[in-house]
Amino acid sequence: MTATDPVANLQTLIRCPSVTPAEGGALSALEAMLSPLGFKVDKVKATEPGTPDIENLYARLGGEGPHLMFAGHTDVVPVGDEAAWTHPPFGAEIADGELFGRGAVDMKGGVACFVAAIARYIEKHGAPKGSVSFLITGDEEGPAINGTIKLLQWAAERGERWDACLVGEPTNPNKLGDMIKIGRRGSLSGKITVHGVQGHAAYPHLADNAVRGILQLTQALMDPPFDAGTDNFQPSNLEVTTIDVGNPATNVVPAKATASFNIRFNDTWTAASLQQEILRRLDAAAAEGVLRPGRAPLKYDIVWAERPSHVFLTRNNALIASLSSAVESVTGQSPKLSTTGGTSDARFIKDYCPVVEFGLVGQTMHMVDERVAVSDLERLTVIYETFIERWFANAGL
Amino acid sequence: MTATDPVANLQTLIRCPSVTPAEGGALSALEAMLSPLGFKVDKVKATEPGTPDIENLYARLGGEGPHLMFAGHTDVVPVGDEAAWTHPPFGAEIADGELFGRGAVDMKGGVACFVAAIARYIEKHGAPKGSVSFLITGDEEGPAINGTIKLLQWAAERGERWDACLVGEPTNPNKLGDMIKIGRRGSLSGKITVHGVQGHAAYPHLADNAVRGILQLTQALMDPPFDAGTDNFQPSNLEVTTIDVGNPATNVVPAKATASFNIRFNDTWTAASLQQEILRRLDAAAAEGVLRPGRAPLKYDIVWAERPSHVFLTRNNALIASLSSAVESVTGQSPKLSTTGGTSDARFIKDYCPVVEFGLVGQTMHMVDERVAVSDLERLTVIYETFIERWFANAGL
Ligand SMILES: [Zn+2]
Ligand SMILES: [Zn+2]
Repeated sequence: MTATDPVANLQTLIRCPSVTPAEGGALSALEAMLSPLGFKVDKVKATEPGTPDIENLYARLGGEGPHLMFAGHTDVVPVGDEAAWTHPPFGAEIADGELFGRGAVDMKGGVACFVAAIARYIEKHGAPKGSVSFLITGDEEGPAINGTIKLLQWAAERGERWDACLVGEPTNPNKLGDMIKIGRRGSLSGKITVHGVQGHAAYPHLADNAVRGILQLTQALMDPPFDAGTDNFQPSNLEVTTIDVGNPATNVVPAKATASFNIRFNDTWTAASLQQEILRRLDAAAAEGVLRPGRAPLKYDIVWAERPSHVFLTRNNALIASLSSAVESVTGQSPKLSTTGGTSDARFIKDYCPVVEFGLVGQTMHMVDERVAVSDLERLTVIYETFIERWFANAGL
Repeated sequence: MTATDPVANLQTLIRCPSVTPAEGGALSALEAMLSPLGFKVDKVKATEPGTPDIENLYARLGGEGPHLMFAGHTDVVPVGDEAAWTHPPFGAEIADGELFGRGAVDMKGGVACFVAAIARYIEKHGAPKGSVSFLITGDEEGPAINGTIKLLQWAAERGERWDACLVGEPTNPNKLGDMIKIGRRGSLSGKITVHGVQGHAAYPHLADNAVRGILQLTQALMDPPFDAGTDNFQPSNLEVTTIDVGNPATNVVPAKATASFNIRFNDTWTAASLQQEILRRLDAAAAEGVLRPGRAPLKYDIVWAERPSHVFLTRNNALIASLSSAVESVTGQSPKLSTTGGTSDARFIKDYCPVVEFGLVGQTMHMVDERVAVSDLERLTVIYETFIERWFANAGL
């Protein structure tokens, strides 16, 4: 039957050069796989002044609940140094049991496997009594403004409701079966500017060196740690990602310095409570400090990056158990239930229904020679099919 | 008699636009003042591949010792925002008792006054029994490669020897008579580069954030203080003058960070012993530190700026007493004997003879509307003349 082979599905998708924001034919190819299976497919174009138009896709099979959503993206990051690829990045060539191409694991591979899984399910059982849908964006690797957020709103406005979601991002650090993500840390970024007084390095008391100020403030952000971690999350961690002054003169004390930081935070905090804590630390450091002895309070300002990513944790045991047992039945290992790593579009979906994430092995994502073991594609397809069966069974169908 | 009026001398000099490296006619104007007084004047051009040619001047009156040198410069810094000047920067206009122009205090004013002082001395006493010379460079405000260093070498090779030197830089913070400089701190600059490992902000343990490294190292340089000061010097002080990373991505942990620093150091240290201490601090901080817990030793390198300025202190009591008493006799106040502030060409002269510095009030130096009180020019001329008399008297003439 059509679309039951994940390898063929993935080769079709990789050959569409869908580097964000280009659709590259990838969503049309997906439509051509899903329509014959009975899915009602909508292409949803999202626009926003100042950003490129983005094509997204929503496809639904069935009209009743329970309703299981598969979410993901067909856009990919740029190929980087194309000459360094062993096989063409949009060629989808297979060599020594591995399929090469941009998006092989992040995450056309996950999409290809879920398509094959539902195709096989229908082949065996007919269409499920409940509903299955695909929520696929072309703007996950880009600014994510015209992607999952808008597609969810679009669907919700049309009355779509979901009971659970599986995101097919590559979640396994080393081998298939390592890790399910059941939540994600939040992410908050900001930029601090210190306003000092320019002067001569020989007369520092007449100046107010902005470098001393920025060191005092960044130090207060980095030490002590924000927390020791929680049951489900590792400790919150702040990294100062850049400090910049741009003063070329060694005998001049600069008036201005900036620092940007990013913090990945756990469920000890909300974005708002963490902002409060950061301001508390900055104000305390500005008031006094060993690097600026005897100085008046330091003048600084802070600009928060738009839209922090909120922390979340999925507590739906039926969803987690269906997925976890499916992984174990195929791989023989019980996957770690993790909340580590970066953010994903799951942070938007969790506002609509419980969400978990499981996909391929992420080692080569975003790299030259991104690739996937062909055997992993087959095994992930079986995992996904088993998960669909168990999730509907858990729901009483 | 010719050249006895410091105001006229200064107006002549200011009207020569001698922004480094341009001679601008200033040295020729000086020659025209000194030759009629009996000075033998040499123009000395200094060259160095990769730098502009520089005109300098050496003038000597008399053939016997004791030999008193006056040192200074006729080059000036750029005018900055010319439109912001109340009077043209090369106009030498007098308004409300003040003479306006670039170089008025730094230090065509000092040169103009010393010329007037020696002219008046000769008018009263005839030529001194010893010798007086002018060592005037056109490269003090520039890289100082083709200036005082080379001019001293040039003169020394011709058998010139000096017993004392007065540098006419503006030494008074607020009013004429405040301060004589009897030494200078040293100055040492360096640039540190930290080499980390780039990575994703969500996986900092897989990366090695160079910002953490540069914070660790700069903190070790800034705290604790290097010393508490000495009898004649304020505490050594280090300023980090810039930190730069240039990472625009908030989710990326950067691999490289640089920091530059400048330290003004006292006679607790030599440049060499201070470099050792700095390396000791950096190595200790690289080995361990709260900002990089559990990390391998930090990789960094350091590049020292060329040619540190060495610290010096003049202990010639006759020289200091002649100058100090001359200042007090005119201003009524006993000047502070100081070693504060930046470096000057005195750091090169001290290798040839004892050197002290006294000149005008420095408040407007390097600024828009640089200017000097006309009354200060007359008073400084009297101070210089008195100093010449007393110094030769002290020397037994
Ligand atoms: Zn992805
Ligand atoms: Zn000067």
